[in-house]
Amino acid sequence: MRLHVPTPLRWSDLDAYGHVNNARMLSLLEEARIQAFWVNDDGSVEHAVGASTAVLDATPGATTVTLIARQEVEYLAPIPYQRLPLDIELWIGHMGGASLDVCYEVYSPLGAEPRTLYTRASTTIVLVDAASERPRRITDDERAAWEPYLEAPVAFRRG
Amino acid sequence: MRLHVPTPLRWSDLDAYGHVNNARMLSLLEEARIQAFWVNDDGSVEHAVGASTAVLDATPGATTVTLIARQEVEYLAPIPYQRLPLDIELWIGHMGGASLDVCYEVYSPLGAEPRTLYTRASTTIVLVDAASERPRRITDDERAAWEPYLEAPVAFRRG
Amino acid sequence: MRLHVPTPLRWSDLDAYGHVNNARMLSLLEEARIQAFWVNDDGSVEHAVGASTAVLDATPGATTVTLIARQEVEYLAPIPYQRLPLDIELWIGHMGGASLDVCYEVYSPLGAEPRTLYTRASTTIVLVDAASERPRRITDDERAAWEPYLEAPVAFRRG
Amino acid sequence: MRLHVPTPLRWSDLDAYGHVNNARMLSLLEEARIQAFWVNDDGSVEHAVGASTAVLDATPGATTVTLIARQEVEYLAPIPYQRLPLDIELWIGHMGGASLDVCYEVYSPLGAEPRTLYTRASTTIVLVDAASERPRRITDDERAAWEPYLEAPVAFRRG
Repeated sequence: MRLHVPTPLRWSDLDAYGHVNNARMLSLLEEARIQAFWVNDDGSVEHAVGASTAVLDATPGATTVTLIARQEVEYLAPIPYQRLPLDIELWIGHMGGASLDVCYEVYSPLGAEPRTLYTRASTTIVLVDAASERPRRITDDERAAWEPYLEAPVAFRRG
Repeated sequence: MRLHVPTPLRWSDLDAYGHVNNARMLSLLEEARIQAFWVNDDGSVEHAVGASTAVLDATPGATTVTLIARQEVEYLAPIPYQRLPLDIELWIGHMGGASLDVCYEVYSPLGAEPRTLYTRASTTIVLVDAASERPRRITDDERAAWEPYLEAPVAFRRG
Repeated sequence: MRLHVPTPLRWSDLDAYGHVNNARMLSLLEEARIQAFWVNDDGSVEHAVGASTAVLDATPGATTVTLIARQEVEYLAPIPYQRLPLDIELWIGHMGGASLDVCYEVYSPLGAEPRTLYTRASTTIVLVDAASERPRRITDDERAAWEPYLEAPVAFRRG
Repeated sequence: MRLHVPTPLRWSDLDAYGHVNNARMLSLLEEARIQAFWVNDDGSVEHAVGASTAVLDATPGATTVTLIARQEVEYLAPIPYQRLPLDIELWIGHMGGASLDVCYEVYSPLGAEPRTLYTRASTTIVLVDAASERPRRITDDERAAWEPYLEAPVAFRRG
């Protein structure tokens, strides 16, 4: 199962070529990922992959921090500034012992015709215990909560 | 042969984790790449890969624009803010008909002990004719100028 | 009359202090401004200050470009990352011959209690003819369309 | 007395208009400020305004943090991408009890002819005790160290 995360652009995402900058794309993916794994201030969960035991928490004082170990991005078409949010499809392509691969396909806004696939990407995230600063295993609860979002890894043209 | 491109950090490259942000790393690689392929306003070339016939020109009105088709990044160690510029090693890992792969190893500042390898990366660049907006072949002059910087592609841990 | 422009944060807006960076605030104001003056691709207008004759158009090929001549910002409270969009109040504090002052008050998300005023700001924008690259006068149509959004300039604590 | 802080541009500082973005200018000023007040990791001071007792320290665990209370910027000429660093003149325009105003004039690179004044700006910084999170007074040592860099505040065209 894939999540659809609506991700708004900013005019400042454009570079001097007038398209969304290639580096900035990773900030958009980061934001989609955070929206997908979001936990509210009161502990309730919206948009989140799974239950509240299975979210990633980027707030100060969190017991787990997430490190980015690896990213791969394929840019298929330049992205112009547009008012409607991009439609980022997001799923888990692999779960390891202490890490997971988040996969993305970045599409034109919902409803835009024709639907354009702008970008494919994957991010390898390692769960790190904030106190010991060492990788920690994905718990059974997390694994169960994330399982429904597990699909085949994104198919890069060349990889 | 590899180029060493000294690349200064900014405090604003840090994210809320207090390290250089993973997306911002691609802006640092972009800047190193531009420094490496730089052509001066008067047409003379410094830092550049090869002669003036073989540089990439990102200024408005340039006859060739460069598109980023693909990027891959491995983050090996978090990068703190530091006053001295990072030492980015940069070379060409592959030359195709209309595209080339730029490879990078991002190291701690020259002279810092121990020398730390922070990041490995590669970028596939396609040369595009600005007028026709279609890929155009690497010329013989360009190929000859870039040849000395051709080495084996960067060796990712996993790829 | 003031416009309320909902403006989403990104986690990457935070700096190493864990709050929205002071420079990034100007990107948020820029985005709110663009949303407020937005014209759709098909020429229709949404969110816009006034009718389609009175919008600013940042797309390539536009006949008018807008230059920022001056900005002033007061930071009243640090802004944490939050899922709901900031509520940016936006109005025109002054209309000159070829320029206008856009004023802002940046508040916590609609519905959050207590309502917090994070930032006050103003931006002086000059309308520039794209062809001649010289300032051009605000037209009567623009002036009529913008008039309803004219209020007293933002009251800085010190200024 | 003014400091001259050489501040390199990045191509990613440009926006879709092909000039340094207005918001990004504040990141450049931030960087110049940090270079000016920089303390080395080993405690020694380079580039710094005054002695080691008088530097501002943005590293985690610092006992004083600095809050930006107010900024004012005048944009006098668009800034193109250029290889040589901008020449940012920086001085203190006012010292209060717990705050100081840093003033800037941003010039074209040293040696470029004609010398162009791109931007004037000022930043009001409040010293905050990291533990109590309340403003703390400028010490006598700091005041003595900063005194030589005290000049008349930057003269805005309109203010």
